Amino acid sequence: MVDMHKLMERLYPLCRSLTGNGNRATLAVLKETVDGLRTYEIPTGSRVGDWIVPDEWNCKGGWIEDESGARIVDFTESNLHVMGYSTPTDAWLTLDELKPHLYSLPDHPDWVPYVTSYYQRRWGFCLADKVLKKLKPGRYHAFIDSTLEPGSLTIADAVLTGETQEEIFFSTYICHPSMANNELSGPCVAAALYDWLKNLPRRRYTYRFAFAPETIGAIAYISRNLQALKAHVAAGFNLTCVGDDRAWSYMPSRRGNTLADRVALNLLRALHPDFTAYSYLQRGSDERQYCAPGVDLPFCSVMRSKYAAYPEYHTSADDLSLVTTDGLAGTLAFFKDVIGVLESNATYRTTTVGEPQLGRRGLYPTLSYFGSTGEAVRNMMNLLSYADGTLDIIGISDAIGVSVKALAHMASQLEREGLLERLSGSMTHPPITA
Amino acid sequence: MVDMHKLMERLYPLCRSLTGNGNRATLAVLKETVDGLRTYEIPTGSRVGDWIVPDEWNCKGGWIEDESGARIVDFTESNLHVMGYSTPTDAWLTLDELKPHLYSLPDHPDWVPYVTSYYQRRWGFCLADKVLKKLKPGRYHAFIDSTLEPGSLTIADAVLTGETQEEIFFSTYICHPSMANNELSGPCVAAALYDWLKNLPRRRYTYRFAFAPETIGAIAYISRNLQALKAHVAAGFNLTCVGDDRAWSYMPSRRGNTLADRVALNLLRALHPDFTAYSYLQRGSDERQYCAPGVDLPFCSVMRSKYAAYPEYHTSADDLSLVTTDGLAGTLAFFKDVIGVLESNATYRTTTVGEPQLGRRGLYPTLSYFGSTGEAVRNMMNLLSYADGTLDIIGISDAIGVSVKALAHMASQLEREGLLERLSGSMTHPPITA
Amino acid sequence: MVDMHKLMERLYPLCRSLTGNGNRATLAVLKETVDGLRTYEIPTGSRVGDWIVPDEWNCKGGWIEDESGARIVDFTESNLHVMGYSTPTDAWLTLDELKPHLYSLPDHPDWVPYVTSYYQRRWGFCLADKVLKKLKPGRYHAFIDSTLEPGSLTIADAVLTGETQEEIFFSTYICHPSMANNELSGPCVAAALYDWLKNLPRRRYTYRFAFAPETIGAIAYISRNLQALKAHVAAGFNLTCVGDDRAWSYMPSRRGNTLADRVALNLLRALHPDFTAYSYLQRGSDERQYCAPGVDLPFCSVMRSKYAAYPEYHTSADDLSLVTTDGLAGTLAFFKDVIGVLESNATYRTTTVGEPQLGRRGLYPTLSYFGSTGEAVRNMMNLLSYADGTLDIIGISDAIGVSVKALAHMASQLEREGLLERLSGSMTHPPITA
Repeated sequence: MVDMHKLMERLYPLCRSLTGNGNRATLAVLKETVDGLRTYEIPTGSRVGDWIVPDEWNCKGGWIEDESGARIVDFTESNLHVMGYSTPTDAWLTLDELKPHLYSLPDHPDWVPYVTSYYQRRWGFCLADKVLKKLKPGRYHAFIDSTLEPGSLTIADAVLTGETQEEIFFSTYICHPSMANNELSGPCVAAALYDWLKNLPRRRYTYRFAFAPETIGAIAYISRNLQALKAHVAAGFNLTCVGDDRAWSYMPSRRGNTLADRVALNLLRALHPDFTAYSYLQRGSDERQYCAPGVDLPFCSVMRSKYAAYPEYHTSADDLSLVTTDGLAGTLAFFKDVIGVLESNATYRTTTVGEPQLGRRGLYPTLSYFGSTGEAVRNMMNLLSYADGTLDIIGISDAIGVSVKALAHMASQLEREGLLERLSGSMTHPPITA
Repeated sequence: MVDMHKLMERLYPLCRSLTGNGNRATLAVLKETVDGLRTYEIPTGSRVGDWIVPDEWNCKGGWIEDESGARIVDFTESNLHVMGYSTPTDAWLTLDELKPHLYSLPDHPDWVPYVTSYYQRRWGFCLADKVLKKLKPGRYHAFIDSTLEPGSLTIADAVLTGETQEEIFFSTYICHPSMANNELSGPCVAAALYDWLKNLPRRRYTYRFAFAPETIGAIAYISRNLQALKAHVAAGFNLTCVGDDRAWSYMPSRRGNTLADRVALNLLRALHPDFTAYSYLQRGSDERQYCAPGVDLPFCSVMRSKYAAYPEYHTSADDLSLVTTDGLAGTLAFFKDVIGVLESNATYRTTTVGEPQLGRRGLYPTLSYFGSTGEAVRNMMNLLSYADGTLDIIGISDAIGVSVKALAHMASQLEREGLLERLSGSMTHPPITA
Repeated sequence: MVDMHKLMERLYPLCRSLTGNGNRATLAVLKETVDGLRTYEIPTGSRVGDWIVPDEWNCKGGWIEDESGARIVDFTESNLHVMGYSTPTDAWLTLDELKPHLYSLPDHPDWVPYVTSYYQRRWGFCLADKVLKKLKPGRYHAFIDSTLEPGSLTIADAVLTGETQEEIFFSTYICHPSMANNELSGPCVAAALYDWLKNLPRRRYTYRFAFAPETIGAIAYISRNLQALKAHVAAGFNLTCVGDDRAWSYMPSRRGNTLADRVALNLLRALHPDFTAYSYLQRGSDERQYCAPGVDLPFCSVMRSKYAAYPEYHTSADDLSLVTTDGLAGTLAFFKDVIGVLESNATYRTTTVGEPQLGRRGLYPTLSYFGSTGEAVRNMMNLLSYADGTLDIIGISDAIGVSVKALAHMASQLEREGLLERLSGSMTHPPITA
């Protein structure tokens, strides 16, 4: 079993960005768990979708020193201190000259913000506002040991084949440096899900995992696989911000009623009924690409604290303490349930004219008496009464308020009794118990 | 005119069950009114739908005596005292041996519960809890003079043909012994409806009435008539619990928007707006069979106090005083209105470009003055403005808040004036006035 | 630019009715602005739709005098004093004989009501209730110098051709004598709209204006043009009660979801969110004809104070002071916006796989930093995310809460950038700015 928080701790110091060796190192660590991981290098300058892959950025260090040689900020302390995609720099500047290159958060004077300039050449440093405020007039030495050179954009995926070509697709991103909820929680939960799925005795669905930088990476991945994804993906989930333990959040697909949305909502309502349902207008991660017009994959996101909706977002405070073991485990359990529901889901039709005689099968009380019909029998009769060949198990669960897991078990039993006939869904094994 | 309460009093003492001579005697009494009644005997052991017809049960008597010969309970006082389908018994038992065979209602110490064991052989007695509580240790003589033998299940129907093969179907059940609201109210209202319909000068629809034990009887009836029912039934109603005067209740069809639902809701909203709309999840009578997947007839129920929702349900307190003359008459009037609406319903289309000139036909005030257009004229103009060939009269009634009865009269008038053209519905006579 | 209130003042004294020279004089004044106006004379006795054109009515004068020769009411003071379509009269009557011919408003003792008897021959006078109340017993001389003779019904239209045959249709009525909001506001706003449209450099749509007496005139116009209207009208608006400054009102089409309704609701919600949405059941003007079954044009009304919903309606108090310069100007501005929206509206589809790279086009901030994405960028990205080839600009505006005007500008920009492709709508010029 994957220790997700440990994995996160290993990945945390690596300097990820749109491109660069930090991303490759991250994928190498992930491949220890996600053993089928394949990486793809897309040369800089290539066109992906409408985008052009920028030069590869690598950063070995960076700091600001004052005239006494005291370091104000240092990349080795936190890779957030050097603005992403900063050009190489080695210059002495006055405080006034330096200031336009400094970014801080006045409202959170202890936190270091996360800033990038991927597509326009700049250099800069991010620092705590309380440090910035203390800088005295004088001269400062700004040094950034980075390269911006031809190279490649690195994306990766892994596929676990199942009994059918139909796919469940988990996408997550690798592009933020040392941040936990809004970066590493996604790949770590993805790795744990992969590990769990790999060891299942059978899988009805094929499972696809993609790891790529947000936006351009997702677009690159979609561009290279569009026809296959459109042909095979039955449901997809963007794994983002899945690590803290303070909230449950739901971001719908653009159309809002895909299989991914239906399973997510069914389970959130049952398990975490106080979840926050966001509007697609509040989107901000790779659902933007997966649900784009013309792509239109059945993709939604189930998150804990949603990006841009918690104070630590895009700052140094989104750290290893923000993401908890419980938070990660809760999300993992949720997505195991998602998979259990999807694996179990099917459309059934009754085989009898009117209700079947459950009593002679030992499924119904033989004595008609006040209150003698218990909840289990009522649930079974409701299943039989709604299994009309149009509603799938998720739809029946929504209609009768019984969990998909319970309904799937009942449906298996009733199928064995010859009372239900499966119309769609090719599950040839018992429902998965998460 | 049928005196429904009198009819109920005659039927009340007969010992009805799933099978047996009590049912045949009940149908014989009903046939005095429902003169076209045909009965069908389905041999025990037959398969109906998924069910197997059990042995026929007949009970001539049954009692418990104490050692002094005093009778504790006696079938001749109330047929509820012997549990339905009790096996023959003649045994002396201690109180402790007897108790597992006794059923009572601690919450209602004066009432005798109604209990059956159709499909598993048992014997038992039902008695008031206050009587049970007073039984002293000692020996008791339990005697049941019943038979469980090959025979048949008895079901019956009657059909009043109309101008078309399209059918309105009323189904009711015969299987409970001495109970009034949840048994006899249905057959008695059905008989009165039959009598009223039989004497109508013309009927656009064919009317079908079915009388059969609940569940297995309805399934038997459906199994034998499925294709015809699916081909012809335009609307159906399960007549159950239609006799008390304390409530109006509505049980939708599974799909909720059939012609039966539409007419029921239109009239309930107009006539009994405080009715309780139940969910299909709260179903419990033969709508379970008529709306089963694959059967899917357009069936709903309009009830007074719904089964399982009033305290006297399935007890000796559901007696002749619970069902009132007013309650029965109110239900009969309601279903006459249902029939009136269905007979009158049609889809119309206007024949003119824009509004017709009602004034030159004497249908519109000749003076344009404040408030000179009354409600009747507005209703007529609304009818003309919504008669677009897609809405039927029920739909127009729902849209403009005018009764179907009033609209049907207006539509006839406007059809005679050549201003409306009937597109569907074959009514060749004036609307029925209930 | 048309001075709408001045135009209204010129038209106010003319005695309009269903027919007659007052209507022709009104159209002659309007033709000074609506230079393409064509009039059509439909002979009395003709059939239009289901209606028969009544004799032409002209009235030169009318009065009541008492025995002393004092005039009680006089047509030359207000043409409302003579009931519309009054027969010629010259008679001495007692007060009791006169009273059935007198109409007043007890609730508004100073106001003269508006009364007509188009289709039944009568004569009458309308007067202030306070005048009526003061009449003393005695003899009165009633004199009406009118004619009811063969002639014709006069209707008119004007068409401004555009780049396509698709039409936007404004209909208004000419049949009430001296009343302002519920008569002249419509033709005056129509004339101003015509004038503005005529001077636009280009028009995607063809614009049609109809001027005809309410009801029979609209029916005549529809009857003569039904196939063309059904083939070409994309959206239509009934211009009625568009002159006071106290309210905004919306009367939907019968079906409620036509292009006319969609643009009206989009703009009312954005610009006048406190508007009153009436039901089609509260209709009362020519939408009754344009939305009649079988006609079913996409017609709605945006009004100020709705007919029959303000106290001065159909009285002498609906005068030149009730309709204000601001009221007329506000309505004109609203319909210019309606036209701007319709001219700009189109369906678009994105051309890229996933989001386009806005940054390299200068359309996106180059620095990723807290709050660096402003509203304009978010709106543009929302437009790109909803432009899926099914939603038109109005639909996207409804979905993302950005004005059609802003979206149309953005869409033009994105079309020039090659990021959006126009699927429908033939606009070949920039959006109109009202």
